[in-house]
Parts: sequence; structure tokens; C-alpha cells
Amino acid sequence: MGSMAESAVVMVGWPMSMFDMRIKMALAEKCIDYEYLPEDFPTKSPLLLELNPHHKLIPVLIHNGKPICESRIILEYIDATWKDKAPLLPSDPYLRSQAAFWGDYIDKHIYLGSRKIWDSKSEELQKSGEEFVGYLKVLEGELGEKTYFMGESFGYVDICLMSYYHHFYASEILGNFNVENECPKLFAWATRCLERESVSKNPVDSKKVYEMVMAGRNV
Amino acid sequence: MGSMAESAVVMVGWPMSMFDMRIKMALAEKCIDYEYLPEDFPTKSPLLLELNPHHKLIPVLIHNGKPICESRIILEYIDATWKDKAPLLPSDPYLRSQAAFWGDYIDKHIYLGSRKIWDSKSEELQKSGEEFVGYLKVLEGELGEKTYFMGESFGYVDICLMSYYHHFYASEILGNFNVENECPKLFAWATRCLERESVSKNPVDSKKVYEMVMAGRNV
Repeated sequence: MGSMAESAVVMVGWPMSMFDMRIKMALAEKCIDYEYLPEDFPTKSPLLLELNPHHKLIPVLIHNGKPICESRIILEYIDATWKDKAPLLPSDPYLRSQAAFWGDYIDKHIYLGSRKIWDSKSEELQKSGEEFVGYLKVLEGELGEKTYFMGESFGYVDICLMSYYHHFYASEILGNFNVENECPKLFAWATRCLERESVSKNPVDSKKVYEMVMAGRNV
Repeated sequence: MGSMAESAVVMVGWPMSMFDMRIKMALAEKCIDYEYLPEDFPTKSPLLLELNPHHKLIPVLIHNGKPICESRIILEYIDATWKDKAPLLPSDPYLRSQAAFWGDYIDKHIYLGSRKIWDSKSEELQKSGEEFVGYLKVLEGELGEKTYFMGESFGYVDICLMSYYHHFYASEILGNFNVENECPKLFAWATRCLERESVSKNPVDSKKVYEMVMAGRNV
């Protein structure tokens, strides 16, 4: 790390990761230039092990020479550090707590729900798919008629959920459901998000995610 | 909820819960009076289901008539709402990200590590105990020679970890280790924390936790 400029923004990530995508979206919203150091998954580089010795996971953001780990913590850091442009979190404590609640809900249910589908045996796939749709419907209910999750502005909760979007395809095929049919408002919201350059500029290939998921299925 | 004064602070909790204890410590540090509504665990009251329909878990803080869920999110809300007294989180974005990292680490490893010991079959107890001690040693390393986790002031990370303290006894007996021997600095830190009224005024009985854990063991 000695060769990195002290004030530079560096991100250690992996392009297929949903958590990686969060940081890219947030940095794009804030118009922050950064150096991207991709990991050669599943190998973990000596740099990654040095930066995140306790979890050994991407993404890691390096700013002013110091590492910040865990994607939702990095999002908060980015918002607090570059606060003048494109606020991602509300400043009101109650609204902030609600954004944090939904970010946490998304990681608990959309991440673990996806993993559950991907790891399900054939006879469990339908049930895992239905559970996942139940979580999506909760999110659709929370979105309601709003443009974005927190209202008129794209922000933290949108980033947390959109980071999973390109992984939905694999879950839809395996879990036998269709997000557009089950959750039309959520689908329309995702379409709106995809029109933002910050979201579309670093696309993840859904078909590749599907292949990766299928290759990883040990059932 | 119609009968509650709009500005009142109400906490729905369960006295034996570690997550409950966090909120009590934070409110005590801030000198906030509140009404405490204990749940009759494991029954969930209609009020709890109304306040936290998605997780159905205590603790819930009600402030200005609105519910806030999830203990670490409640801690942040309390700190942001009553910010003049006893700050729990630093305002600097980097230091704040480090506090969030350790709060998250504690919930991932100390909570799940405790549950793993409690649910371990006899032949797995030693290994689960050793893993848990490994996580405690990471925390001892982070604490180092500091008075509290973030420096000279008792705060968020101390509250996150101290909330588990009364549950250590059950883990020590089952996992065959002794926190004082394995992590003397952490033990001295816990002793310092226990001297604070905010920590000691709502003690949880370690022996009762042990009995509860033993009664719940299905192995």
C-alpha cells in the first residue's frame, strides 16, 4: 500500500459480486474517480488479506490509505465523506433508521434467500422460490407508489437492492418464478434504476451469473 | 399505540435478551426516561407483531409514536436523536466506519458463536468453544491497551459487546474455557464497564441464562 497516493480512492473487488456493484454505484453517483483492483476469485490476494484480515472478503475501499470493509458500511462512509453531491442517506434520524432497516432486511432475506434457492435440492426449489417471492413482495409493499425506496431520490436502499438485480435471473429460473409478474412495481422500479448511468455503467451479465450458480450447485 | 403520548419513549423488550440490554445501556447513558413493556417470551404480543411485522423481534423502541427495530439501528437512532449527551459513535466518517465494523463483527461472531456452542453436540463442544475464544482474541487484539474500544469514552462498540457479557458464563461452561484466563485485557475491560451504572443497573442473571441455555439444548 506504500505506493498508493494517500488521497487516492482505491477499490478492491470482484466484478461479478453484488457487493462490489454497490460500491461502484455509490462512487458513480458521487462522481468519484477510483482505481479498481479486481481479485482473481476464489483466490484471495495478499493485499486483500492484509486489508480485511478478519473477514477476508471484498469489497474493500481504501481512502486516505485506510481500508473500509463491508459493503453497507462502505456506502455509509462514502455518503458521509462526500456529502455534498447525491446524498444517499437522509439526515433525519428516523428516516435514516428506516433506510438502515431495509438495507439490513435486503441482506438478510434477498441475499440469504438467493443462496437458499441456489443451494436447494430439486425437490426444495419450488418452496425456496416461493419464500423468496414473499420477501420481494414485502419490498414491493414498502416501495408502494414511490419512485425510489426513500421517495424521489435514488439512494442507499435502491443501491442495496439493485446490487442483487443481475442475480435475480438465476433465482427466477431455478425457483420457477418471474419477478415482473409477481412484483410489477418492483420490476418498474428496477427498470427506472437501470436507466441511471451509475447503475448501468458496470453491468453484471445475468447469464454468466446463472452459469456460475449452476456450476456451484452441489445437489 | 393510540394511548401513548406522542413524545414518550417506550421500549418493547425482554429482560433476558442481550439485544434488549443494549438499548437499556444506551438510554441510561443518555439519561432518557422510558416506559418498558416486557414481552412474555416466547409468546409475541399483538403490539410487537404490529410494531415489527417483518422480523417480529424485540427490542423495538417507540419514539414520537414511531417504531424503530433492530438493536444496532436503535443504538444509532438514539445517538443521533439525543446527541448532546454521552456520544456513542464518533462523528468522523472513518472512525464511525470502524465502530460499525466491530459492531457487525460482534453480532456475526459473538452472537452466532455463542449459539453454535449452545447448539453443539457434546463431541463438538470443545471445537465450538475454541472457535469462540478465537473471536474473543480478535476483539482483545482490537481493544489492546485502550480503556474502551473507541478510546477513552464508553460507546457503541462497548455496548454491542457488553450486551453479551452475561451470556458468556453459559458458553464458558459448555465450551470449556475461561474468558479471564484466555483474554485478560477483555476481562479487565468488562470489569471496567460493569462499574458504570448504565451497565450494572439492569443486570442479567448469568446462572439463569445458563439454565435457559441448558433447557434449550436439544442434543
